[in-house]
Amino acid sequence: MHNDEHAGATGRVDGPAPDSPAPDRSAATRDRLAEAATAAFAEKGFAGTTTRDIAAAAGMSPAALYVHHRSKEELLYVISRAGHREALHTVRSAAASSDDPATALRALVHDYALQHARGSTRARIVNYELGSLTPEHFTEIRALRRDIEHEVRALVARGIAAGVFDTPDRDFAALALLSLGIDIARWYRPHGRWSPETVARGYADMALRIVGCTDARQTRSGKDAATR
Amino acid sequence: MHNDEHAGATGRVDGPAPDSPAPDRSAATRDRLAEAATAAFAEKGFAGTTTRDIAAAAGMSPAALYVHHRSKEELLYVISRAGHREALHTVRSAAASSDDPATALRALVHDYALQHARGSTRARIVNYELGSLTPEHFTEIRALRRDIEHEVRALVARGIAAGVFDTPDRDFAALALLSLGIDIARWYRPHGRWSPETVARGYADMALRIVGCTDARQTRSGKDAATR
Repeated sequence: MHNDEHAGATGRVDGPAPDSPAPDRSAATRDRLAEAATAAFAEKGFAGTTTRDIAAAAGMSPAALYVHHRSKEELLYVISRAGHREALHTVRSAAASSDDPATALRALVHDYALQHARGSTRARIVNYELGSLTPEHFTEIRALRRDIEHEVRALVARGIAAGVFDTPDRDFAALALLSLGIDIARWYRPHGRWSPETVARGYADMALRIVGCTDARQTRSGKDAATR
Repeated sequence: MHNDEHAGATGRVDGPAPDSPAPDRSAATRDRLAEAATAAFAEKGFAGTTTRDIAAAAGMSPAALYVHHRSKEELLYVISRAGHREALHTVRSAAASSDDPATALRALVHDYALQHARGSTRARIVNYELGSLTPEHFTEIRALRRDIEHEVRALVARGIAAGVFDTPDRDFAALALLSLGIDIARWYRPHGRWSPETVARGYADMALRIVGCTDARQTRSGKDAATR
């Protein structure tokens, strides 16, 4: 389960450009820096990466880097914030996509898994370098994580209330669903046995088993289900 | 899900003491070094830790450290090997503990989860610093990981063959079971909401849902099950 593939970080990194005279070019430069930082953090860990490494990978001088970011921690924060905002948007959209809790949970776990498989490099940094954020930045990211957890717990509760999910502990089931999704970032290999879509479909089926979905239309038997 | 608790590494670290005139004392010193290294790697990451940090935490000089270990990578390897051997022993013993696949799977997931919750600090290092091992050491650890995966896959296959498990993809289900266990090391907090035993019991129940266990004695409904 060793993942030595460090390519594959995707997604534009957001952030304001208050003082920039050329916002488009500045945004492109920040994206380039975020991509270089993502690759460097993935390869050497946050502690083992220098701002010099990041600047070199982005093809600029350390001084030029400081025009955009005060520190490598600020880069980590920007990457982490973008990843968490995207994850929150994913789970919120999916949870609201259907009145039927089973259909919504299938969509949520599918899309969350897909995001972690496709963007596994960034997802590793987003999830495993939280301890390297400043306390202020960590507080902000933790609030986003709690919002994500709340969405999943609320959806599981909706299914229980509707009588279609049957699980002994709502919060524990929600935790396991998020845990399975996050750990994809650790084990997933882009050119390995399973495509991102296969993982997403397999985890969506598994999620309905985990919450004890009693809706026969949603729980397909082993013989009928095609997970690849 | 931020885990800033770095204490709690347990388990004696094994290893030969071929040249030591005082094997007991030497083993105790190596244990102390392994514990100090585990705490340091957990706090600063492997790349951010120096041998000086480890020696200081163990109350010895860097020169004294080198008597026992040639490098901090060797310490990581010794910690990783001990953790993986213990995990392999756990899953092998549990798989062999019952002829009934459901009983054996319940034991396996319970014991594996318990190990990752109780030894979460060490488990994080064991699972998240594989990329810092030398290629030779990584090859050896990877073989242990494959043995662990093989045990879980074989047990799921046994349940399918016996007609008590019903899951579309044996290997995918086995991967999810191990993934849930490993990710405990990331999110588990020693003094948080759930005890290690609660997590272990909850995951054992969940495992039987994941593999589609059809044995009514094993699959308890939400109303009957007590996961805490």
